[in-house]
Amino acid sequence: MAPDASRPHIAVCPGSYDPITLGHVDVISRAAEIFDELIVSVVNASVRKDHVLFPAAERVRFIQNATSHLPNVRVETFDVLIVDYARRVGATAIVKGLRAISDFEYELEMNQLNRHLADDIESVYLMASPQYSFLSSSGVKEIATFGGDVSDLVPDEVAERLKEALSR
Amino acid sequence: MAPDASRPHIAVCPGSYDPITLGHVDVISRAAEIFDELIVSVVNASVRKDHVLFPAAERVRFIQNATSHLPNVRVETFDVLIVDYARRVGATAIVKGLRAISDFEYELEMNQLNRHLADDIESVYLMASPQYSFLSSSGVKEIATFGGDVSDLVPDEVAERLKEALSR
Amino acid sequence: MAPDASRPHIAVCPGSYDPITLGHVDVISRAAEIFDELIVSVVNASVRKDHVLFPAAERVRFIQNATSHLPNVRVETFDVLIVDYARRVGATAIVKGLRAISDFEYELEMNQLNRHLADDIESVYLMASPQYSFLSSSGVKEIATFGGDVSDLVPDEVAERLKEALSR
Amino acid sequence: MAPDASRPHIAVCPGSYDPITLGHVDVISRAAEIFDELIVSVVNASVRKDHVLFPAAERVRFIQNATSHLPNVRVETFDVLIVDYARRVGATAIVKGLRAISDFEYELEMNQLNRHLADDIESVYLMASPQYSFLSSSGVKEIATFGGDVSDLVPDEVAERLKEALSR
Amino acid sequence: MAPDASRPHIAVCPGSYDPITLGHVDVISRAAEIFDELIVSVVNASVRKDHVLFPAAERVRFIQNATSHLPNVRVETFDVLIVDYARRVGATAIVKGLRAISDFEYELEMNQLNRHLADDIESVYLMASPQYSFLSSSGVKEIATFGGDVSDLVPDEVAERLKEALSR
Amino acid sequence: MAPDASRPHIAVCPGSYDPITLGHVDVISRAAEIFDELIVSVVNASVRKDHVLFPAAERVRFIQNATSHLPNVRVETFDVLIVDYARRVGATAIVKGLRAISDFEYELEMNQLNRHLADDIESVYLMASPQYSFLSSSGVKEIATFGGDVSDLVPDEVAERLKEALSR
Repeated sequence: MAPDASRPHIAVCPGSYDPITLGHVDVISRAAEIFDELIVSVVNASVRKDHVLFPAAERVRFIQNATSHLPNVRVETFDVLIVDYARRVGATAIVKGLRAISDFEYELEMNQLNRHLADDIESVYLMASPQYSFLSSSGVKEIATFGGDVSDLVPDEVAERLKEALSR
Repeated sequence: MAPDASRPHIAVCPGSYDPITLGHVDVISRAAEIFDELIVSVVNASVRKDHVLFPAAERVRFIQNATSHLPNVRVETFDVLIVDYARRVGATAIVKGLRAISDFEYELEMNQLNRHLADDIESVYLMASPQYSFLSSSGVKEIATFGGDVSDLVPDEVAERLKEALSR
Repeated sequence: MAPDASRPHIAVCPGSYDPITLGHVDVISRAAEIFDELIVSVVNASVRKDHVLFPAAERVRFIQNATSHLPNVRVETFDVLIVDYARRVGATAIVKGLRAISDFEYELEMNQLNRHLADDIESVYLMASPQYSFLSSSGVKEIATFGGDVSDLVPDEVAERLKEALSR
Repeated sequence: MAPDASRPHIAVCPGSYDPITLGHVDVISRAAEIFDELIVSVVNASVRKDHVLFPAAERVRFIQNATSHLPNVRVETFDVLIVDYARRVGATAIVKGLRAISDFEYELEMNQLNRHLADDIESVYLMASPQYSFLSSSGVKEIATFGGDVSDLVPDEVAERLKEALSR
Repeated sequence: MAPDASRPHIAVCPGSYDPITLGHVDVISRAAEIFDELIVSVVNASVRKDHVLFPAAERVRFIQNATSHLPNVRVETFDVLIVDYARRVGATAIVKGLRAISDFEYELEMNQLNRHLADDIESVYLMASPQYSFLSSSGVKEIATFGGDVSDLVPDEVAERLKEALSR
Repeated sequence: MAPDASRPHIAVCPGSYDPITLGHVDVISRAAEIFDELIVSVVNASVRKDHVLFPAAERVRFIQNATSHLPNVRVETFDVLIVDYARRVGATAIVKGLRAISDFEYELEMNQLNRHLADDIESVYLMASPQYSFLSSSGVKEIATFGGDVSDLVPDEVAERLKEALSR
């Protein structure tokens, strides 16, 4: 079927964002140029019982503050299969950043699994910018745990909260 | 700068397409759902003097015939830097398929090089469908050279021309 | 030493199988064509205290039911070093499926470790079929946790039990 | 279909072998333990016009001399698709050695292509032994070109011929 | 700034060493040839609360005994960011062994993160020797748990202590 | 044997350097901090008959000009095995930059081959800086061929000569 030219292109950008880094902000900003609407979708970890440092509401607020200059971006939480969630919000695409080979492999498997579950939802990938290719939420938390300076790696608000939450 | 909601999203999908495979057709069809206009852009190899089996005009015709059901797709040749070409046609994105780790590595390097040359042009990636993850133009030519059957791997027209061009 | 032509070729196919997927069934079926006898060997996790969803006896029954059409396949549990187990059952080979680069790397290390421990036991590898290259037991459990449909990914009996065990 | 217990398991072990290395000999010896008959199959490059250092007949003789102690191994040339060749000689398996990630990726693609062409022919893989994991025919030729000592890397006869063929 | 020729080159070689393997000993010995002083630096895991088998003091003693023949090597624990620790001891380099692609990827990310935090500290890498390329502390512990023989993989003293600590 | 504290640490940094890029300059500068003397060693391609754009003498001059601020660096050509060359100049180490997985794999194989040939010569690796992780001599030549701007990627002198040599 030919695409409907009048339909806006909506994409979701899912993740744990525990917490958001400047690498995430970079990918979100670039994705916001490609899609008409971009929904940053925060996994509500209560289902999976994974340990998270910040509660979902705080992770959402960090992202909202860091992307408030992007008018076509909004932030939500979700706790269902990503493809079910994408359909529910009218998205036709899932957008992810790729940093390294291991990201690629994991995303390739998720991609094929997601398309098996819902072949009307496409996943698209952006490559991380070189200056953020080393950056992950877990790396940032590790550095903050040892008292290292993360002010160049995350939004200021997040850097401050990390210091409070992790400094010994 | 916030994106202009009224601006159509144009993407280019560059490659040698020597010849187009059903894996290419799959990626082109999926990309045509994401962008308002998709330009399949055939590298005119005369500059690089790489050996190609089919002349650019024939490669273009194969793609046109294989994508004639997609109203927002058109086919062109180009012989300049891909980012210069993308700007010239008003594209804001380059779209590529990823099959394997080596694709990813090559594309990561090209991505960073292209963004260094033109940071207003974004590259986006789609993962190859599992059933085409093994498929490349060079593999198809190799099989055809040995008289193998490629009719499930390329459009019918291409399968016939490969037989003529390569059978011993 | 030249191989003994009259000796049957026995192989073991070890794994957690928590639970068996259609990807496992595919590899087992293909391996059963290559060896005279194939023993699907279920790691009894009680030693390693890894969390498993299904007890070993149930994982064994799932495999038995899914492979009952293969006369030269039988299913057992083991709780010793795989090379010691292989010797005990008279196997000369360990057979494994490979899906991705990370599988390959892990298996390469295990291979070299196992050959260091027992150089009379050879490990042989089959590549996952494209349609199952994205499939893992943990992915299946993840989907089932979120209420997704796994009926195309595992035997029917397993799909039903996953729904009982994981649905919220 | 259940396997025929009385059918001998024949495998082919294809390659350029230009020239055979001790790494090849290691894989061939190990594969000869797993299959009833092993045919080392030398690509006759005249079709592909790839440059080879040694003519096919000499490459075959090197392998014959290096594997003469293995009664269930024989050496042949072939110049058709490997799956067609495997069928012609009654083989049910293609056996290959894997050394590195790039070998794995290439073999994964060939595997899926070959199974697409002939799903009755299975490919099985052995991991290179650690001491030969760095060894390739092209590396050996490179060293010999610069007058380096390759006597620990290839059979004696091959080392001598490399010196004659490549020394400046 | 030109290097100060009279300054000794000090490097740190950090790790958990839980416990030291012969692969570690190999890398330490080779690194001790390149630097004037080498400090083997044991992560004191109490901060990170990771589970370790042996307390830091015992891990240090194992390394001291295994490297007592190397006059320019000494062993210490540390519990701060590795770059802060390196500066504190006057080191200009961090030296690490690389075994596999996954090591490389992890180290590449750590490298870029560490240089972001402290660009005066360089990280240098040695490739694992082939015979130890499969060897890790966790693999050794796994084998010992199942009663396997690890006497060729770790120093004798460590092999004995593993048997005491892990045998069931 | 314990290292001789009074012996200067000499390393060679081999490559084609056709032409030198700012990524090469970055690695050379960092390596010059670690070793007492660093010899940038240009492969004289006449032996291998690989196509090069610039003759060896010009490649050497480009490097000399780009590293003239580093007092402990000198530039030479070589046309023998790198390990033989390293011994001849009294080097105990070969230093290389690593950018990507494919670099790592190639270097791992060369490393093991070189240590097989000469175990007294150690190879050490530095990771490319993020901003140069996409940069290669061949990429630069490709861009210049299409008239792209390479002035941020190579020394000024090289950018000018590339324009002369490659512009159409």
